Amino acid sequence: MTEQKITPFEVSGGVDESGQIKPVDYDKLIRDFGATPISPALLERFEKATGRKPHRFMRRGIVISHRDLEKILTKYEKGERFYLYTGRGPSSDSMHVGHSVPFEFTRWLQEVFDCPLVIQLTDDEKFMHSKTISMDDATRYARENAKDIIALGFDPKKTFIFSDFEYMGGAFYRNVCFAAKHVTLNQIKGAFGFNDSNNIGEFHFPATQSAPSFATSFPHVFGTDAKSVPRILCLIPCAIDQDPYFRVCRDIAEKMKYEKPCLIHSRFLPALQGEGTKMSASVDSSAIFLTDTPNAIKKKINRFAFSGGQDTAEKQRELGGRTDVDVPYKYLTFFLEDDDELARIKEQYEKGEMMTGELKALCIKELQQYVGDFQERRKQVSDEVVHDFFSRKGLLFRGVPADQKTVTVGTATDKGAAKENGPKKELPVR
Amino acid sequence: MTEQKITPFEVSGGVDESGQIKPVDYDKLIRDFGATPISPALLERFEKATGRKPHRFMRRGIVISHRDLEKILTKYEKGERFYLYTGRGPSSDSMHVGHSVPFEFTRWLQEVFDCPLVIQLTDDEKFMHSKTISMDDATRYARENAKDIIALGFDPKKTFIFSDFEYMGGAFYRNVCFAAKHVTLNQIKGAFGFNDSNNIGEFHFPATQSAPSFATSFPHVFGTDAKSVPRILCLIPCAIDQDPYFRVCRDIAEKMKYEKPCLIHSRFLPALQGEGTKMSASVDSSAIFLTDTPNAIKKKINRFAFSGGQDTAEKQRELGGRTDVDVPYKYLTFFLEDDDELARIKEQYEKGEMMTGELKALCIKELQQYVGDFQERRKQVSDEVVHDFFSRKGLLFRGVPADQKTVTVGTATDKGAAKENGPKKELPVR
Repeated sequence: MTEQKITPFEVSGGVDESGQIKPVDYDKLIRDFGATPISPALLERFEKATGRKPHRFMRRGIVISHRDLEKILTKYEKGERFYLYTGRGPSSDSMHVGHSVPFEFTRWLQEVFDCPLVIQLTDDEKFMHSKTISMDDATRYARENAKDIIALGFDPKKTFIFSDFEYMGGAFYRNVCFAAKHVTLNQIKGAFGFNDSNNIGEFHFPATQSAPSFATSFPHVFGTDAKSVPRILCLIPCAIDQDPYFRVCRDIAEKMKYEKPCLIHSRFLPALQGEGTKMSASVDSSAIFLTDTPNAIKKKINRFAFSGGQDTAEKQRELGGRTDVDVPYKYLTFFLEDDDELARIKEQYEKGEMMTGELKALCIKELQQYVGDFQERRKQVSDEVVHDFFSRKGLLFRGVPADQKTVTVGTATDKGAAKENGPKKELPVR
Repeated sequence: MTEQKITPFEVSGGVDESGQIKPVDYDKLIRDFGATPISPALLERFEKATGRKPHRFMRRGIVISHRDLEKILTKYEKGERFYLYTGRGPSSDSMHVGHSVPFEFTRWLQEVFDCPLVIQLTDDEKFMHSKTISMDDATRYARENAKDIIALGFDPKKTFIFSDFEYMGGAFYRNVCFAAKHVTLNQIKGAFGFNDSNNIGEFHFPATQSAPSFATSFPHVFGTDAKSVPRILCLIPCAIDQDPYFRVCRDIAEKMKYEKPCLIHSRFLPALQGEGTKMSASVDSSAIFLTDTPNAIKKKINRFAFSGGQDTAEKQRELGGRTDVDVPYKYLTFFLEDDDELARIKEQYEKGEMMTGELKALCIKELQQYVGDFQERRKQVSDEVVHDFFSRKGLLFRGVPADQKTVTVGTATDKGAAKENGPKKELPVR
């Protein structure tokens, strides 16, 4: 019997008395991390502030907890500048759907908030943490992963993608040093479980992952006004295993008298084998890759996806299936947009009116569609497009360059019509 | 009673049974560090290879030990490229003569070897290690100290000065990451005496001080040929307290399959109070600053300089003075060029033919001259000159751009006449 262990380097639900792998206990995780569950009241406020129905991930508890999300909503209501920051550790040439899920949500947030987004590719981290990944590998992975990320549909006018190897220096490096100065070794040992045989790059890297939380790291985006730029708030959408980095980062921000970054956490897309762990890029049978063919997707789900259904059709009709552990059903909660259809599937499956094979077929269809659409867009990503995303250009916040201090927004009660047709007024932007 | 303690952060000879501060025991230090004393045979080889009489610091045991200096002499004889690397932690606006001593020696080595030199200003380190130095302070100190260093007489065609805040990124950052990956926390604890309450920036910084030892950190100087550039050897002239950094660095180089940097160590210029410690920028009465007036120099030496002379003129005449502990005499060994005059002073002082006041007067005269000359040159250092030293330009190695692979030199037996009039031949440069 083992306890669940969730760090940026390991995700395991643990093993129960009978030797079974346990699903990740997210309620316990949120309590242990000291994060705040996303409440129905917060979702209501979100809808009111933005005029947008919360994303299906938010409606279905896939986006599960947060830190200070209210502050971002207040900024949005006031028309004050903020930005999104997320990232990816480029550990292989191709990404799987577990990697694309947080980016899908980030893309949606960017659309809703109409705000700048910075995406950090931590090629330095992957090199530092791996026995096998060379510096050239990490550099290549970063560039390839960037193409995948771009194909998910980010707006180049609002998005800056950078790799640490490429962007390190200047204002960014100064923030890395600021951060590093305010973190003791003890804190890193506590947050990440490292010991004295880890290398000094691993210990130092949390400073590098913290620095993009501070708007001063991006003078080409936000300008260099030493009074207003440090007060530009950051919202970090991430999978919940990344929370230790940003707990440390929020401590640092406090010591530096910077704004603490806000967070919004998502669950992991489970591995095909079940809720006890997440998809792994190094275990092909655990994941649906964005490069998989329709046939490969079909085979993987039929062969490997853990089912909550019964052993025989007869039993299934009699007892029904368990959606709480069924992987194909879980995947539908991530990828199927229609709430009514999802409810219908749940009911039919639990009542035994739907067989395991039918459920798997629905899941296969959704994923084939998702991956197929992605592959079509991926073909369009040229080197010029990549260059544009990596270039140190200004970005727009609600249609206005993000280094400007004023923006025209609708009133806070305008239910998101601001962009289109709400009554406009000039508001100061901090 | 305490043992001597020499780290990059503390220099103390310890205290003996009677509570007296002990002079630094350099023989013990060299043994403890595992360095190699500079032998008469090595000095002979140096003179033979370069055609130059060894510097007074080398003749007088001020430059005291080394690691692999022979390798550099072999490179020089063969006409193969190498470079010098030294640095400064900019901890205050003005430098003292203890800071200028290793730079004087480096300048001389650059002249003798006619080779590129890179000078690292570790503004990031000073920020990270200090409770009081802000980032802006460290940046300003780096810029001001650079002017002092330039005024010591470096050749801009062969010298690149950089600050970490300014230069961090690109090839340099990649080498920092390479280095960081190959050093465990344990190694840093052992070499520097840090514990878990030190910050992660302090633990990581040795990677940043290591990176300039690798020629690939300077593509604008040495080019980017992945085959030949990593084999360009580096010689690091430094005060011996910096050795722990480069012991770690040499381990790293071995793991990275890079050339290990060679080292040449100097003693510290003692504090006015004696050989037990070195001058400190934060203790005005311990040091002669490069900004001190002639009168201040006179007062400091007369008032604070520890004397090996007797209490009274009568006793001095009878017993003589002790040059082994006399600070004014020590300073003359650093600054007085003429060996015969120094020998004469030593003899007269030890025999009691020279009084303490006379010895101090000689020391005052030398230091007033040294500091006065410096101040004259310092006035000439314009912003344009500083800009030139900081610009990412090519540098010359024996008159040829250092990114070229061939250079014309005299034969190895040519006693240094190579540059002027020795028989020329084309030699391959690795």
